[in-house]
Amino acid sequence: MTYLIPRDFVAQENARSLAQLQADYDALAGVLQRRGRDIEALTTQAGGFSVALPSWGVGTGGTRFARFPGQGEPRNVFEKIDDCATVHQLTRVTPGVSLHFPWDRTQDPRALREIANARGLHFDSVNSNTFQNAAGQPLSYKYGSLTAQDAAVRAQAIAHNIDCVELGNTLGSKGLTVWLGDGANFPGQHNLRGALERYLSSMREIYAALPSDWLIYIEHKLFEPAFYATTIADWGTSFACATELGPKAKCLVDLGHHAPNTNIEMIVARLAQFGKLGGFHFNDSKYGDDDLDSGSINPFQLFLVFNELRDGVARDGAAFNPTYMLDQSHNVTDPVESLMSSAIEVQRAYIQAALVDTDALAHHQQENDALMAAQTLKQAFRTDVGPILAMARVRAGGAADPVACYRASTYRDHKAKERPPVAGASGSGIV
Amino acid sequence: MTYLIPRDFVAQENARSLAQLQADYDALAGVLQRRGRDIEALTTQAGGFSVALPSWGVGTGGTRFARFPGQGEPRNVFEKIDDCATVHQLTRVTPGVSLHFPWDRTQDPRALREIANARGLHFDSVNSNTFQNAAGQPLSYKYGSLTAQDAAVRAQAIAHNIDCVELGNTLGSKGLTVWLGDGANFPGQHNLRGALERYLSSMREIYAALPSDWLIYIEHKLFEPAFYATTIADWGTSFACATELGPKAKCLVDLGHHAPNTNIEMIVARLAQFGKLGGFHFNDSKYGDDDLDSGSINPFQLFLVFNELRDGVARDGAAFNPTYMLDQSHNVTDPVESLMSSAIEVQRAYIQAALVDTDALAHHQQENDALMAAQTLKQAFRTDVGPILAMARVRAGGAADPVACYRASTYRDHKAKERPPVAGASGSGIV
Amino acid sequence: MTYLIPRDFVAQENARSLAQLQADYDALAGVLQRRGRDIEALTTQAGGFSVALPSWGVGTGGTRFARFPGQGEPRNVFEKIDDCATVHQLTRVTPGVSLHFPWDRTQDPRALREIANARGLHFDSVNSNTFQNAAGQPLSYKYGSLTAQDAAVRAQAIAHNIDCVELGNTLGSKGLTVWLGDGANFPGQHNLRGALERYLSSMREIYAALPSDWLIYIEHKLFEPAFYATTIADWGTSFACATELGPKAKCLVDLGHHAPNTNIEMIVARLAQFGKLGGFHFNDSKYGDDDLDSGSINPFQLFLVFNELRDGVARDGAAFNPTYMLDQSHNVTDPVESLMSSAIEVQRAYIQAALVDTDALAHHQQENDALMAAQTLKQAFRTDVGPILAMARVRAGGAADPVACYRASTYRDHKAKERPPVAGASGSGIV
Amino acid sequence: MTYLIPRDFVAQENARSLAQLQADYDALAGVLQRRGRDIEALTTQAGGFSVALPSWGVGTGGTRFARFPGQGEPRNVFEKIDDCATVHQLTRVTPGVSLHFPWDRTQDPRALREIANARGLHFDSVNSNTFQNAAGQPLSYKYGSLTAQDAAVRAQAIAHNIDCVELGNTLGSKGLTVWLGDGANFPGQHNLRGALERYLSSMREIYAALPSDWLIYIEHKLFEPAFYATTIADWGTSFACATELGPKAKCLVDLGHHAPNTNIEMIVARLAQFGKLGGFHFNDSKYGDDDLDSGSINPFQLFLVFNELRDGVARDGAAFNPTYMLDQSHNVTDPVESLMSSAIEVQRAYIQAALVDTDALAHHQQENDALMAAQTLKQAFRTDVGPILAMARVRAGGAADPVACYRASTYRDHKAKERPPVAGASGSGIV
Repeated sequence: MTYLIPRDFVAQENARSLAQLQADYDALAGVLQRRGRDIEALTTQAGGFSVALPSWGVGTGGTRFARFPGQGEPRNVFEKIDDCATVHQLTRVTPGVSLHFPWDRTQDPRALREIANARGLHFDSVNSNTFQNAAGQPLSYKYGSLTAQDAAVRAQAIAHNIDCVELGNTLGSKGLTVWLGDGANFPGQHNLRGALERYLSSMREIYAALPSDWLIYIEHKLFEPAFYATTIADWGTSFACATELGPKAKCLVDLGHHAPNTNIEMIVARLAQFGKLGGFHFNDSKYGDDDLDSGSINPFQLFLVFNELRDGVARDGAAFNPTYMLDQSHNVTDPVESLMSSAIEVQRAYIQAALVDTDALAHHQQENDALMAAQTLKQAFRTDVGPILAMARVRAGGAADPVACYRASTYRDHKAKERPPVAGASGSGIV
Repeated sequence: MTYLIPRDFVAQENARSLAQLQADYDALAGVLQRRGRDIEALTTQAGGFSVALPSWGVGTGGTRFARFPGQGEPRNVFEKIDDCATVHQLTRVTPGVSLHFPWDRTQDPRALREIANARGLHFDSVNSNTFQNAAGQPLSYKYGSLTAQDAAVRAQAIAHNIDCVELGNTLGSKGLTVWLGDGANFPGQHNLRGALERYLSSMREIYAALPSDWLIYIEHKLFEPAFYATTIADWGTSFACATELGPKAKCLVDLGHHAPNTNIEMIVARLAQFGKLGGFHFNDSKYGDDDLDSGSINPFQLFLVFNELRDGVARDGAAFNPTYMLDQSHNVTDPVESLMSSAIEVQRAYIQAALVDTDALAHHQQENDALMAAQTLKQAFRTDVGPILAMARVRAGGAADPVACYRASTYRDHKAKERPPVAGASGSGIV
Repeated sequence: MTYLIPRDFVAQENARSLAQLQADYDALAGVLQRRGRDIEALTTQAGGFSVALPSWGVGTGGTRFARFPGQGEPRNVFEKIDDCATVHQLTRVTPGVSLHFPWDRTQDPRALREIANARGLHFDSVNSNTFQNAAGQPLSYKYGSLTAQDAAVRAQAIAHNIDCVELGNTLGSKGLTVWLGDGANFPGQHNLRGALERYLSSMREIYAALPSDWLIYIEHKLFEPAFYATTIADWGTSFACATELGPKAKCLVDLGHHAPNTNIEMIVARLAQFGKLGGFHFNDSKYGDDDLDSGSINPFQLFLVFNELRDGVARDGAAFNPTYMLDQSHNVTDPVESLMSSAIEVQRAYIQAALVDTDALAHHQQENDALMAAQTLKQAFRTDVGPILAMARVRAGGAADPVACYRASTYRDHKAKERPPVAGASGSGIV
Repeated sequence: MTYLIPRDFVAQENARSLAQLQADYDALAGVLQRRGRDIEALTTQAGGFSVALPSWGVGTGGTRFARFPGQGEPRNVFEKIDDCATVHQLTRVTPGVSLHFPWDRTQDPRALREIANARGLHFDSVNSNTFQNAAGQPLSYKYGSLTAQDAAVRAQAIAHNIDCVELGNTLGSKGLTVWLGDGANFPGQHNLRGALERYLSSMREIYAALPSDWLIYIEHKLFEPAFYATTIADWGTSFACATELGPKAKCLVDLGHHAPNTNIEMIVARLAQFGKLGGFHFNDSKYGDDDLDSGSINPFQLFLVFNELRDGVARDGAAFNPTYMLDQSHNVTDPVESLMSSAIEVQRAYIQAALVDTDALAHHQQENDALMAAQTLKQAFRTDVGPILAMARVRAGGAADPVACYRASTYRDHKAKERPPVAGASGSGIV
């Protein structure tokens, strides 16, 4: 029997802080009312938001130097589902789970789908993995996968991606995210055009295997694991390839995959304008692909991204529908706690962006009034919408304070007992 | 007769929004009270804050490509004082003005001091300029000033700095900030050690001329105007030089003068720890030394800097006393408006940092509870302390909404009439 | 009478070093022969290379802080032509000159064309300028030009570009390069999609006015003069816009206009692959758009760019024909000297790339032999091809050592007398 | 019986290319003679150069995503010694080996020392490891080691470092390099000053345990494994700590551990000037701590570093004596090949720097002749000194072409048979 937090427990915990929450909520309602905004509409909007969880995010991450595992880590996809369900139970904003193959491969995908559904979860886009060698895999990806010189290696990588589509289809997914590490560590190692030609050729085969209602998401990344020339390194390459492939190919923006100083919200605006914005991997970073918790380093940037998303909806309506997912590495925190607080951070940016006075903004832009345009965004960003998010959670059966509730439940202690570490699992890293 | 905003006008403007401010203030008081914090103590603390204005900040800035002047720009130091006085009148946090020579040179510094004092202003640290050739200057700084190969050029630059000290002493200043552009554009142009030896030799002469109660501030900058090897390029060089020179030499941190991805708050912590943190030039940037308005790009970073300053006070008390100044380039806004809103942004970060629950933070740090430690900072940062700042202003005779009040006063229109543009002033830039 | 270096003088200077050059050339011939390469074929190839000069490059550049003019600076387009002709006379690789309007506007373009032709020069693509306000211009570009909110400002900027096309047509140019500084300094100042929509709308009008044999080059730049969101900030945006506009629109790559750590040679490969590589502005940089002399900071990167260009020719033959131009700011050197040595640096990279053993490279790539592939490039790069370049110059009537010959000619002293400084020209910069 | 390449084999291989080498050497001798330089003096200088090998460098590296092992990887320190000996046998420039504990721990250090000596090797500085948990270690370094909050963890880390000193002393080492990953992933996780105070306290204990003729090297790194605030992140912190600790503490510069755009040669010059330059970890990088092969990305930068080292020797003579070591991650190449070619790249930069015409350089610097100063460096850098390095190797019994000789020897095939992979060794990485 696996432990899950009882519903009653959440309610009891909420009861302890509800009066304070209501008071804060009422205070904020007054502030917003004096600005002509209705808090209830925002709370409703918050309740409709969701961001998917990556199945790998419930395990402790690491670096090439080391991994320091925590207690009670999930050992298979079913245990990952339990952790994801707990995140969703307390936050009410993470009903989707994104699986990664072969890490999450199971013999019985239908059973997995049923269990997930029973936990209130569904499966978001699936992820292929050709940046590692799977156990028993005939050919190595050491020198590339979809771009490999060796046609047999490319065929193996293509087959794996098509296999992911089929598995995902059984699970109810509607998209395949392809991130690959292919690239060169040395000038000269690759013919740069040749590598991209092979990539496009491989992707065309995968594209042809997509069900009619699926999308394929191209995820770019500046560097790592390739350290000189990553084949899909920037949004320009991603966009050009998505254009080559066709309407079912879209670009995925991971917030940590850009060159220093890059204006990420402009990339969002560009992809939106040209009809190729597929979705997001949310996280934060200070140096590279640090995969830190969303909003932990630069929360204003996250807000500005959502300000563009708000603009996209305003312009394109329901046709504007990128997918949202967390993609983080939790090295020094309990992954469940990081996922909960990060999902809320993303939701926070969404509601702050909803608070932008768009009429005033448009007016200031028209008047070249840069200062007041900037202040209009800042006013929305500075609003502490925490009570809105908490109230939306409580009303949906979630926790007023998810981290506090989770700690009080001693969920992790239960898991530490239920899930003894797998022998041989190493924390030694790769140097 | 120069136009200044009448005191009554400010009071009348405040009267229009005071009820709303009081309501927001009361709502915030309740939120803070539920967290165990007294709003009045914070409002008092806000009222005690100040940040100096750079005299050059009241003119429109530009880039090497162009400068697009605004209307009614100040044409001399006395008109700059009027603009600075207006910023202080409405914000109540900018009583200090930092002059720059020879730009602000006047025949009668005593008269200047009296006029400034009459406006409620005093003079903060003075700034020397050896990165341009002044009219009539015998020798050129094209190839350096304090580091020049030519001893006569160095002597001229040293004399200018000593002259600044004397002038500043008459004006009531207590510090000299030395930023120089000296450096190389080509590998080989400078012997890197030789250039720094000459710098130290020159600075020792200036140091020797400091009054006993003065400090000299070393301001580093990664690049521009030198584009390959700036002599004082980073905090390490600044720190080593300040150590060589002696206790009256301190390091000045300009937020825009660092390499990409630099953790500026760590530099603050390091200089504080080793007793060499002299002060700040506040601004914000996305790419380089963009000199954007403080807090406009990454407000959380500004908060984290003030979190270190809070820690410095907690550790070292009154001995910890760095100077604060704005240093921004206002290219597309009215400089008075940018200075007002930026001064308030800096004050905002100061009060947000004051809100940090330091006991909880220390506890979480001790427990290696990274998530809750981060949340503790975020809670303080997310608090919208705007009503505290506004109330502090109103109580001190300033404006509830300085930008709105300033616009309503038509100050700029008055200046446009009083200050017709100087013939020959160019906006053409340098390419 | 304007001084030009006599042809005899060059021959006399060459005579002094010809024996040494011949000995070095013979030694290199032997080295290359032992690798199976014929030096004469390379010398012929070097003699066929050219890179255009920017007319503004013959003046001393500056930064926003200052400009330190040199002696004998050209005061108008005719004097610029003299300096460009001197660069070409000594290097034999710079027959093209790229003009910039309104800086180089003349009443009699036909006369200008004849004078240039008489000097052995022709006119490369022309450049429009909507990043500054020209004297007498009715509307300001302070808040943008082709992207301005105000339709009248956009119309003015469009008309200027079309005027440049007409002027260029008279001068014999075949292309228009459009770099604009439009962008925002504050989050919120621009609606990011709206700005690009206006850009595309404006560019479509200019595109429609192009003669049938013209190209329009879109030049992107990450930042400066805009410091938060430049409308045409990266190659992705440039590529998307060139695609929108049509086959006569191409992308121009300036080596200094990218985010830190960007792999520029990959951008070259991508634009080549997708048929949108229009040309280059060559320079070098360490920090930002430093506009340093080509190859002065990272000569290997310049070689890698030319390795891609070599690959483009190998794949696409004569259809692959990007334009080459220098675009540098000479702040501490004599501009004529910097242009001469930079043109030679670019030519050097071209010949080094021609030295790559392409069969071996392809073989190592096929074998995933990263080390030997890298060594194959390095061997070409390490070859000191200086004697080839010098011999090509001497054979074409240029100087064996252009800088030494130029100095010996005292060209600059002549110009200092011929061209007294214009009164009022300022070196004060913009801060 | 372990296979080592027979000395006769090397001689036979050399014989095949000696005539060509001699011809290239003679050609270069002529070129240098015409510049007034004696090739024999340079060949002698090349023969005296050495750079140490990291014991971990002979294994295949990886990233957090995957490691793709090669064949015949060494499984213990004795096998690593064989590989290092082979690198030295063929290149003659790598007699020193730097060990890493506990990775290279052995029960019988005296035996290890004797075997190494018999192979012509000695032990360079030793490296401690507190960024991973060793098997059986009582306390975890998850939250830091020398800076940990928990005094017991700090004590364990201090004891490990002192143990390394004792072990190194037995092995003949004279230095301890301390790189630690300690830092924070979240703002607030660490009190920044507190962490550095604990670091200094821990280091003082280690410092006190150093033998009188030992040095301790402080290695800084901007980020990774810590992603927000690394305690020893930059040269400024390293310098301040080395100053605090005393004369036996020096700073170590790893070329990959800096912020983007950092001028590394200036850091070298600064540390040299202030007497704290301890040594180097050589590698190259394009993005972060990529640990690519030395000189593979920016060979001119490596030359500029050696130009500063040349200047240091010229100024300070024998007192200027930093240690040199490679520190690279070989992910897609045979590690022995990468180490050989990298050691030669470093030696190449050393000899190119020796070629600098220092009198001319000083003269151009004195005259502010930036262009000719830059050309003076470039002339040295452009000289293909390959024949000097090859001749120095051949004369010392090494290989004219080490990679070709190594491949011909089939050393790796021998090792593939001798060293079957260890069961359970994983290539799966950490995500």
